[in-house]
Amino acid sequence: MITALAGGVGAAKFLSGLVKIICEEELTIIVNTGDDIELHGLHISPDIDILTYTLAGIVDEEKGWGIRGDTFYCLEMLKRYGCEAWFNLGDRDLATHIYRTYLLSKEGLKLSKITSEICRNLKLNVKIIPMTDDKFETRIITVAGQMHFQEYLVKKGAQDDVNDVKFIGAETAKPAPGVIDSILNAEAVIICPSNPIVSIGTILSVKGIRESLRKSKACKIAVTPIIAGAPVKGPADKLMKGLGFEVSASAVANLYRDFLDVFILDTADSGEKARIENHGIKVIVTDTLMKSLQDKIQLAKVVLGEIRK
Amino acid sequence: MITALAGGVGAAKFLSGLVKIICEEELTIIVNTGDDIELHGLHISPDIDILTYTLAGIVDEEKGWGIRGDTFYCLEMLKRYGCEAWFNLGDRDLATHIYRTYLLSKEGLKLSKITSEICRNLKLNVKIIPMTDDKFETRIITVAGQMHFQEYLVKKGAQDDVNDVKFIGAETAKPAPGVIDSILNAEAVIICPSNPIVSIGTILSVKGIRESLRKSKACKIAVTPIIAGAPVKGPADKLMKGLGFEVSASAVANLYRDFLDVFILDTADSGEKARIENHGIKVIVTDTLMKSLQDKIQLAKVVLGEIRK
Repeated sequence: MITALAGGVGAAKFLSGLVKIICEEELTIIVNTGDDIELHGLHISPDIDILTYTLAGIVDEEKGWGIRGDTFYCLEMLKRYGCEAWFNLGDRDLATHIYRTYLLSKEGLKLSKITSEICRNLKLNVKIIPMTDDKFETRIITVAGQMHFQEYLVKKGAQDDVNDVKFIGAETAKPAPGVIDSILNAEAVIICPSNPIVSIGTILSVKGIRESLRKSKACKIAVTPIIAGAPVKGPADKLMKGLGFEVSASAVANLYRDFLDVFILDTADSGEKARIENHGIKVIVTDTLMKSLQDKIQLAKVVLGEIRK
Repeated sequence: MITALAGGVGAAKFLSGLVKIICEEELTIIVNTGDDIELHGLHISPDIDILTYTLAGIVDEEKGWGIRGDTFYCLEMLKRYGCEAWFNLGDRDLATHIYRTYLLSKEGLKLSKITSEICRNLKLNVKIIPMTDDKFETRIITVAGQMHFQEYLVKKGAQDDVNDVKFIGAETAKPAPGVIDSILNAEAVIICPSNPIVSIGTILSVKGIRESLRKSKACKIAVTPIIAGAPVKGPADKLMKGLGFEVSASAVANLYRDFLDVFILDTADSGEKARIENHGIKVIVTDTLMKSLQDKIQLAKVVLGEIRK
């Protein structure tokens, strides 16, 4: 059994390669929910949806999120009612949010149970677990004030300088059922190429998760989200800078050094190998940029090769 | 000021003619909410939506409900999640239900306030008031069991023989703000050509509404929903039969005889004139079938002519 810690687009790309070379049933994915947001009264879980849509083969690959070929007629009408429409919600995509919100508020189900229902209906055999069923919100403290992560990223285009990041709920949020067990009992835990602050950092902030990673006998292996000093996608550079970190692969490895065994470094950053090895972390240098499905499978093979050598 | 009691399609047709010959600001419409239903966690008010869409000029005229040219991609995806999809909800139409549900459950607004917001956003100057802000449900007691009106009509196609109709909530529901005043202070109250049992009957069952019609000095004038022994649309015949009424214009007039001044009878039913007049109701015989906009305006002119003669 393999467990992965995942954010959105980068993780989804990597995992869509991984499921081509292992059985879906072998994989458990623990997903960041710090980005979750309520809009128009609907509960939206962006990272969970990116993963389910990607693994179900219905994602809009060009954007990395949403459903391929989706239309936006409902959102246009919501605008007519004066609703804010800075967060793009497609008509098909809305069904997921309506269904999730219905099960949360009317049936009283937990997000983890709902996520497994969504997976079942999309015919996915991977196990996708939100990091927590409890309220959790990533807030970005910027020079322009503090705001929800989605407001920072989507509404304001990650333009404001970041002073700090707060995880509202981290003090009380419990890991969702299965999260700790899946880490303790895994053969390997893969830290996906996701934002180390607001995707992986969020997951690690939930009580007990970081400790279980330290305790687990699994091979803990991270794939770099940084290539040549920049994130492949998203605002990781701005957030790392804002928190006083160097924007580099080795700075990411450093954030995981208390539990990490292996770090997958991009060829472009091979110069950082020694710095990471100094933390007692084994380094494998390979091409990590995933453009084609072949790239994704190749990278997954390198990771799996290290796990099962 | 003119007040109208209204159900869905028949009322909307008539009123779209009326607003061509009076100012929108002069018209208050009190709408049946017994058909309201919650589906997928969303609050749907079918009759209110038919009226707002029709008067805003965006209704699907062929069907009589929904928005012209609407698509159904969200509903298709909801089906994929295993949701029941017997009630057609278009993508644009869903925005109304999402917006309404958000304001109801998150902002705590009343249905009457929300309806006026919807009207404002659709640039309508008529005043549309739900008959009540309280929970109210029309249940149809059939040989196959009892069910919500929408289940009877839409899911089961009005196939089951009707034994009785129950108005759940009628004992406690209060008229929405403005309902009673708009009846007491009107120059005329028009009973639209709507189902006398589950549209007008529903409105009349809300405490105080029937009494205010009896008390009001307004000219109370009803347009027949029955032509030649059959409703123009909908299951009025089945419901009337089920409750032991004759399916005829005069039976409808009889249901309103405690407050009605004038009844607009279709030319096809002129033989019933004397029977209705026997109840002390003035009868005007004219063509009431509304196919073209010209038909609607012509009928509205007859009604307005009687009110303002």
